Amino acid sequence: MTTPTLALARFALDCRYEQLPAKTLAEAHRTFLNWMGCAIGASQHPTVERALAAVRRIAGPAQASLIGRTERLDMLHAALLNGIASHTYDFDDTHLKTIIHPAGPVAAAILAFAEAQAGGGVVSGRDFINALVIGVDVECRIGNAVYPQHYDVGWHITGTTGVFGAAAACGRLLGLTEQQMVWALGIAATQASGLREMFGSMSKPFHPGNAAKNGLFAALLAKENFTSSEQGIEAKRGFAHVLSTKFDENEITQDLGKRFEIDLNTYKPYACGIVIHPSIDGCVQLARKHALKAEQVERIELGIHPLVLELTGKRTPRTGLEGKFSVYHSCACAVMFGRAGEEEYSDETVSSAAVIALRDRVQAAVKPGVAEHQADVRVILKNGEVLHLFVEHALGSLERPMSDADVDAKFRGLAQAVFPEERIAKLIAACRDLSAMSDVRQLVPLMTAVHA
Amino acid sequence: MTTPTLALARFALDCRYEQLPAKTLAEAHRTFLNWMGCAIGASQHPTVERALAAVRRIAGPAQASLIGRTERLDMLHAALLNGIASHTYDFDDTHLKTIIHPAGPVAAAILAFAEAQAGGGVVSGRDFINALVIGVDVECRIGNAVYPQHYDVGWHITGTTGVFGAAAACGRLLGLTEQQMVWALGIAATQASGLREMFGSMSKPFHPGNAAKNGLFAALLAKENFTSSEQGIEAKRGFAHVLSTKFDENEITQDLGKRFEIDLNTYKPYACGIVIHPSIDGCVQLARKHALKAEQVERIELGIHPLVLELTGKRTPRTGLEGKFSVYHSCACAVMFGRAGEEEYSDETVSSAAVIALRDRVQAAVKPGVAEHQADVRVILKNGEVLHLFVEHALGSLERPMSDADVDAKFRGLAQAVFPEERIAKLIAACRDLSAMSDVRQLVPLMTAVHA
Repeated sequence: MTTPTLALARFALDCRYEQLPAKTLAEAHRTFLNWMGCAIGASQHPTVERALAAVRRIAGPAQASLIGRTERLDMLHAALLNGIASHTYDFDDTHLKTIIHPAGPVAAAILAFAEAQAGGGVVSGRDFINALVIGVDVECRIGNAVYPQHYDVGWHITGTTGVFGAAAACGRLLGLTEQQMVWALGIAATQASGLREMFGSMSKPFHPGNAAKNGLFAALLAKENFTSSEQGIEAKRGFAHVLSTKFDENEITQDLGKRFEIDLNTYKPYACGIVIHPSIDGCVQLARKHALKAEQVERIELGIHPLVLELTGKRTPRTGLEGKFSVYHSCACAVMFGRAGEEEYSDETVSSAAVIALRDRVQAAVKPGVAEHQADVRVILKNGEVLHLFVEHALGSLERPMSDADVDAKFRGLAQAVFPEERIAKLIAACRDLSAMSDVRQLVPLMTAVHA
Repeated sequence: MTTPTLALARFALDCRYEQLPAKTLAEAHRTFLNWMGCAIGASQHPTVERALAAVRRIAGPAQASLIGRTERLDMLHAALLNGIASHTYDFDDTHLKTIIHPAGPVAAAILAFAEAQAGGGVVSGRDFINALVIGVDVECRIGNAVYPQHYDVGWHITGTTGVFGAAAACGRLLGLTEQQMVWALGIAATQASGLREMFGSMSKPFHPGNAAKNGLFAALLAKENFTSSEQGIEAKRGFAHVLSTKFDENEITQDLGKRFEIDLNTYKPYACGIVIHPSIDGCVQLARKHALKAEQVERIELGIHPLVLELTGKRTPRTGLEGKFSVYHSCACAVMFGRAGEEEYSDETVSSAAVIALRDRVQAAVKPGVAEHQADVRVILKNGEVLHLFVEHALGSLERPMSDADVDAKFRGLAQAVFPEERIAKLIAACRDLSAMSDVRQLVPLMTAVHA
């Protein structure tokens, strides 16, 4: 009988780049580019600095680089730090079916692995993209099998399933045997961790970093024939039954190797919770179309779903982080700047007098019939004109995916505080054409800072 | 309000060696000695060798030693490897209320910490023993609060609670502030992991090692002000509610700092599951009292609780590991050798013709009225004499604790394959008098192998 664990192990070993559909390849490249931008953006954040201060005391040989920085660490800790950085702004990708942020655990692990040449040689762009697709598929399929009960009880699903994705992707690059891959998934299962209680603290972005590190370590252990259960996922006392009350095996095995969960990945255009995105999106569209200036605007009227006010009804945010929980601040920025990136959620922007003045003219009210993915947006100008837009789906949803240009623009917004424009253009081009790269280590000089 | 997390943090910071009762101090020294013996005994086992092969690729500076070996690793990985070694034979200590093996996660972490001087200076024997008491109390109290539901659902409680014990003990030695200690416990909570499904594989002893490593890392992160939830243990989406359906706060707070869970620690005299211990114990007592030789024995008759046959009814074991699941093999050894240590469960002993000949003369039958902790043992001699003993409680139980001499003898049995007798005597003496040691690093030359 083929168990889910064995099926995933075989898939991780058998899946070939040449068989991946064009849509899957395109989404894999977008996934990686978007992830890299998030990691660069937060690379100097205190969350990263503090983790690095702890890691410095015990890190091993300089095998792999920290994105956006000068330091090099052993591959496990490089994976940890890059995984932390990429989720620090909570601006990375989302597999909407499970709310998994798929790239972090997998990309952080295989990037460190590739630079360290942990498999004994060069990792090509094709092998890297293939491993990314495999890792994301493994973590999201396991997520599908246990969601939503697993998430509802309190597990941060990005951490708990991410460790499997990292193990599978690294195991593939490491050339594990089938027996070893089964063990790697078991060693991943027995390290699955991460609580939702940590949301709002530095321990939230710790989860994808930790999943990357532990998944990579699981593969390294399995390579040395360190044994585990062979039914780590599905056994009575295995991952699924211990960490969830739901386990649907079909979610793991159905069309495995034929359709790929990475096809369903999405990228946030706005640096805040997804519930405000329809409102922001309406404001951005109107602002851009009419080249709005704040001084023209009398007020902004939002007709919204009740969840928007419940989750993001903060009237007078005082910090950047609080701004993310304010539909008022978010929509004021969307009209003033035509965007709502990480910069719009800085402490400075939130306390800017001009932003506050417009924020105080944003009115938000529940409008019956408006769904969670919709928003009814009106901008009333001082000259009496009323600009109206009903947003059916926000940019960044599966129904209205971000274009490649949108993803590039987001990347630029994140990277510009760290890298000059010329470097950013080169890095975007390199990530977009990653499959053509003969050795993924060619990314390293593009993604790291120069020693002072 | 003092939450359980805060209460444990304060206890971990406030508990002083000078206030510990004599019984607690004595048990702490026994706990450490017993743990050290188990780690020495398995120090050359393939489980350790394979983990070490993986770790070599990424280990950091040589900060801390591997027990019974020549290698030195960064303190996190030394904690991992020593924690793995100490649980490899499943012969370490047991907190019977929760089936936690308390020493592994805590002792492995603080020993590596002390050798690395991670707190910036010398760790005295007194501070070390105090930290051990603290760590064991924290892990066992958390265990009491969630047991048995937490264990029943499938968590390996030594791994899941051990990470808290290691974090608290290391956090104390590291001089964390109260806020940092609360964060350390939160970072521990979000790493809690380890599935019972791994029993029977190398991933079982991985759990205490991993808990030691991750708990130590939690303390190092907290020291750098890496934040977490402040209610990591008791919050709705915190450790207790996500990983158990039971949470009794009183188990954490009641008499905290007044009575100590380490007082309840026990040490296995026999290297197998506790269910056979009464039978073995009866055989050992009779063999010693009458200086029995195998050739005198006609047959051995055991009257036992049904669980003994259910769990350990293997009639013809073929490997050492299978021998641990055979009451027949175990009692044959107990009569022949007057002991049932790790040596009696080697592949060689299990396939020895003399042992098999006596094993085939062991009869085991359920006897109504015999409780799980009892055994009715009869040895019928060829001269017709019948030796009889009813065992009320086996050696190693709380009711009949091992004497210091028993613990020493167990240590010798474990260490003799690795160290000469003279060294063993010195190491026992050093562990017995650990509180008098000015610098715990004085243990290092006694517990490590000499470079060839």
